[in-house]
Amino acid sequence: MTASSRDLQFTLHDVLDFEGHYQRLYGNDAPGRELIDAISEEAARFCDGELAPINRSGDEEGCTFEDGQVTAPAGFKAAYDKYVEGGWASLCGEAEYGGQGLPDSLGLVLEHLMAAANPAWTMYPALSRGVVEALEHHGSPEQKREFLPRLLSGEWTGTMCLTEPHAGSDVGLVRTKAEVQADGSYRISGTKIFISAGEHDLSGNIVHLVLARTPEAPEGTRGISMFVVPKFDLDGSRNGVVCGGIEEKMGIHGNATCILNFDEARGYLVGEENQGMRNMFTMMNAARIVVGLQGVCQAESALKDATDYARERLQMRSLSGPKAPDEAADPIIVHPDVRRMLLTQRAIVDGGRVLVYLTGQVADVATERDDEEGQAAKDLLDFLTPIVKGMLTELGFESVNHGLQIFGGHGFIRENGMEQRVRDTRITLLYEGTTGIQALDLLGRKILQTQGPGLNRFIALMNELAGELETSEDAFLSGLAPVLRARGAEWLELANALMGRAMENLDEVGAASVDFLFYSGYLTLAYCWGRIAQTAHAGDQADPYIQGKLAAARFFFARMLPRADAHRTALEAGADTLMSGSEETFGPW
Amino acid sequence: MTASSRDLQFTLHDVLDFEGHYQRLYGNDAPGRELIDAISEEAARFCDGELAPINRSGDEEGCTFEDGQVTAPAGFKAAYDKYVEGGWASLCGEAEYGGQGLPDSLGLVLEHLMAAANPAWTMYPALSRGVVEALEHHGSPEQKREFLPRLLSGEWTGTMCLTEPHAGSDVGLVRTKAEVQADGSYRISGTKIFISAGEHDLSGNIVHLVLARTPEAPEGTRGISMFVVPKFDLDGSRNGVVCGGIEEKMGIHGNATCILNFDEARGYLVGEENQGMRNMFTMMNAARIVVGLQGVCQAESALKDATDYARERLQMRSLSGPKAPDEAADPIIVHPDVRRMLLTQRAIVDGGRVLVYLTGQVADVATERDDEEGQAAKDLLDFLTPIVKGMLTELGFESVNHGLQIFGGHGFIRENGMEQRVRDTRITLLYEGTTGIQALDLLGRKILQTQGPGLNRFIALMNELAGELETSEDAFLSGLAPVLRARGAEWLELANALMGRAMENLDEVGAASVDFLFYSGYLTLAYCWGRIAQTAHAGDQADPYIQGKLAAARFFFARMLPRADAHRTALEAGADTLMSGSEETFGPW
Repeated sequence: MTASSRDLQFTLHDVLDFEGHYQRLYGNDAPGRELIDAISEEAARFCDGELAPINRSGDEEGCTFEDGQVTAPAGFKAAYDKYVEGGWASLCGEAEYGGQGLPDSLGLVLEHLMAAANPAWTMYPALSRGVVEALEHHGSPEQKREFLPRLLSGEWTGTMCLTEPHAGSDVGLVRTKAEVQADGSYRISGTKIFISAGEHDLSGNIVHLVLARTPEAPEGTRGISMFVVPKFDLDGSRNGVVCGGIEEKMGIHGNATCILNFDEARGYLVGEENQGMRNMFTMMNAARIVVGLQGVCQAESALKDATDYARERLQMRSLSGPKAPDEAADPIIVHPDVRRMLLTQRAIVDGGRVLVYLTGQVADVATERDDEEGQAAKDLLDFLTPIVKGMLTELGFESVNHGLQIFGGHGFIRENGMEQRVRDTRITLLYEGTTGIQALDLLGRKILQTQGPGLNRFIALMNELAGELETSEDAFLSGLAPVLRARGAEWLELANALMGRAMENLDEVGAASVDFLFYSGYLTLAYCWGRIAQTAHAGDQADPYIQGKLAAARFFFARMLPRADAHRTALEAGADTLMSGSEETFGPW
Repeated sequence: MTASSRDLQFTLHDVLDFEGHYQRLYGNDAPGRELIDAISEEAARFCDGELAPINRSGDEEGCTFEDGQVTAPAGFKAAYDKYVEGGWASLCGEAEYGGQGLPDSLGLVLEHLMAAANPAWTMYPALSRGVVEALEHHGSPEQKREFLPRLLSGEWTGTMCLTEPHAGSDVGLVRTKAEVQADGSYRISGTKIFISAGEHDLSGNIVHLVLARTPEAPEGTRGISMFVVPKFDLDGSRNGVVCGGIEEKMGIHGNATCILNFDEARGYLVGEENQGMRNMFTMMNAARIVVGLQGVCQAESALKDATDYARERLQMRSLSGPKAPDEAADPIIVHPDVRRMLLTQRAIVDGGRVLVYLTGQVADVATERDDEEGQAAKDLLDFLTPIVKGMLTELGFESVNHGLQIFGGHGFIRENGMEQRVRDTRITLLYEGTTGIQALDLLGRKILQTQGPGLNRFIALMNELAGELETSEDAFLSGLAPVLRARGAEWLELANALMGRAMENLDEVGAASVDFLFYSGYLTLAYCWGRIAQTAHAGDQADPYIQGKLAAARFFFARMLPRADAHRTALEAGADTLMSGSEETFGPW
């Protein structure tokens, strides 16, 4: 198993009560525990049986490019066929177009297990999900009829085409042109780069969602429109979009990162002209949560491998006396520093998992409810999304590196798979918006521009949890209550101070943003670990699994949460510490 | 240029006064500034001309293994020939055996420039240096006569053979056997793994320094002896050591990481029986400083590339108003968060460079002086070595990752070279003793077992610097004095508290060690940045270079030094936070 079924069950049922959550939202249509577990188990079987075995071979073989055609590594197409046969592509799609209509949060379980088993392969179907969501929300009835059934069956796959050579984080610089034709369709011309799954041999057709600019469009992001551009047009003819090459890169070798040349390709406007950026965010926000989850997934797989290794590998004696006197040395798990690394991974993985699925629940409410509760959920979702994406990918990368380190020199060689996890995880800090972009979104848009309704709602959750914990007869649990309350108050104070500073100098936003993201991330995880501790305390105290959760919770509060203070001190130092020197002072020398 | 000649000059001459240092130690034989600069410039020419151009191609091609033979990537042998022709192999060797007799600290300049240009290639000659040092210190007159001239000419290269499949960090588990023969030589049999440069086509012969065990040797590290085992024996016959394969690994693809099978190979005892571990540390300690330097080197090259990119790449407008109104967007160096990453890199690179060369000076004194000053230098060197190795490789890895991040998605693809730097740097945290091993060495051996004479001496240096700074009319400089004094006092208090704890429970050592290493690392860098700030303040304040040093110093104290507090809090939480759960609580689940 690449992902722990016990951990998944603990998260979904014990900590977050998914059954109750669905019951509240969907009433009689709610998926019950049996269905949730059946889907999890079936998904795990598919991922363990089909995806995990081709993870390393896919990395080693990579994709092949020849004459505009891309061949995915051996076994990738066969696994995709099984994915289609299993009906996995339709899990969360609208029933009207052949979907199974299950909640998006349940789709996270599938994304989770797939990404833990094979992140490169997972990106082929993951991008289709994005196109489905964009069309469900913004497509015309005809577009939905034409595209959704084939995307939901898995017969076709999708891509997101944003980046151009000169337009990365700055999507407003996109130059790809779209000219309207007499029949209402558009001709799309331009070059897109870094298009994941942009060309491959897994599906019969590829549906590109393309950001482009009409001739009279205003400059910047306000002049961007969204188009759907199928590789094979609706009449079956080959459309004018051709793969010009694939990138050699650090990781996810099994996924083709393509240069796509659009040469008067026929495209269909999705939504209204010049609304492309806003509409793209419909899928981008969901995708950002999935990328945050990817960080956690690789960290989870690395933790499992590192734990196995730490229990088997014999090196050195425990300083406090031999623990395996009959062996030549003790298993390295007896060494405090190996435990420090394992517990750091555990703190990231368990806390991150709760954060992702909690965010999934919030997203369900935001989608389902049109009332005040729905608005509250939207605020919270907007606030949590950059934290999930930014923080969990950064910590996921830290975590897989601890996993590699536990293997020592054996972690650096290919055989043990740890170095691939490090390479594969590195991209999660970059795509769907870098850490820096997430941080600006969090502090700039979600706090300063909007007066931080999501932050207030999250602090209310922290205080609510503190209220529950403070009456506990357990000293550790009741001791968390003042910590959560004090951190919440400190967070708000910090946000207010930054608002004041930003009014005087907008550079204060960028100067504080990433440290504020990390600070916020650790506090968000503190809430999640409070929930985990609370849940574990209600469990069987003789169960090593439960004991482990409580030990990890103690570790988190004692040894990881203090990192927040270093970030607070750093960001309080202000913009002058970054901006006082001229460009020239940076060299290069 | 892969390494900044201005930065090198600033470090060697302005901050550390190498000329004065050599004058004090070597009197009339001292290399003067002219010679130091000539060597630096010539070495830079060699590295830029021969090594940098084959860095990426070496990574892509890797080494080839066939029938026990290893072929290094194209151009590696030709570059090695130029290295030999240039006389670089003999730079710091004893004159008696053909060496140029220059101080080891000057050899660091060569290591520095080579490792910045091509870390994989650099490991071929770097390992020879280790063998030379071991033989200079512990070899018999005959061994010196036989091996040193050919190693110093570069005709032969060397390796260090410690690791076996079951013996990594725990060298005491080595099983390779050595049986004495009638002629006084030994027959060596066993398998060594992870032998860098263990087999290749660069030199005519390879001299292996092998740790092995004689039949009656005591268990553990006290029963290990050191042997020199040439691939071609002294009579020219092929010796019984054969490469059984090379590893596929994350980085340094251009260097062959070999499995070596010794089958009754003829070896010669170096030093006395059972003294192998102690003697191996002669070369290991020097090698650890070089590995710390490697972390800084890759960070330096990454900083240079990232700075270039940040000044060229146009994305987004500055939040405080357009800075390049005639362009489509501003260069990303105007964004505070990009500056945060560049300054973090700068803090690591400049501070780390001063730390390495300062340690080199201390090593010179430790080698040259037999008096009290020599003992003080030995104490300080012992103390600084694990910090240089452990901290600068960890921060080096952080730094190259910031470099990659500044490139955004373009950092993840091979073309820009940043992803290779990340992969190549990752090994520095593992070889020559992992970070965890360095941390145990620092806290266990260099502080607790010996009552920390090196720590006391370093704190004395901090206080001495504080005394110089406090009279400065510059508010920033005089403000550093109380910071350095307070940190020194805190450091000592922390070490004393840990001594007390360790007496009650030895697991407290391992539970605190890595956090103590990081804590100590940041305080050590604080001293280095104090020296840099002091030096820069004495320079031309109108010079952007000097302004940059002062800006980076302010950044370090305001935004990086506070990280030390998170490590202090974490380690003060004690061993219970790691050891309270049983092994079972760790899963895997």
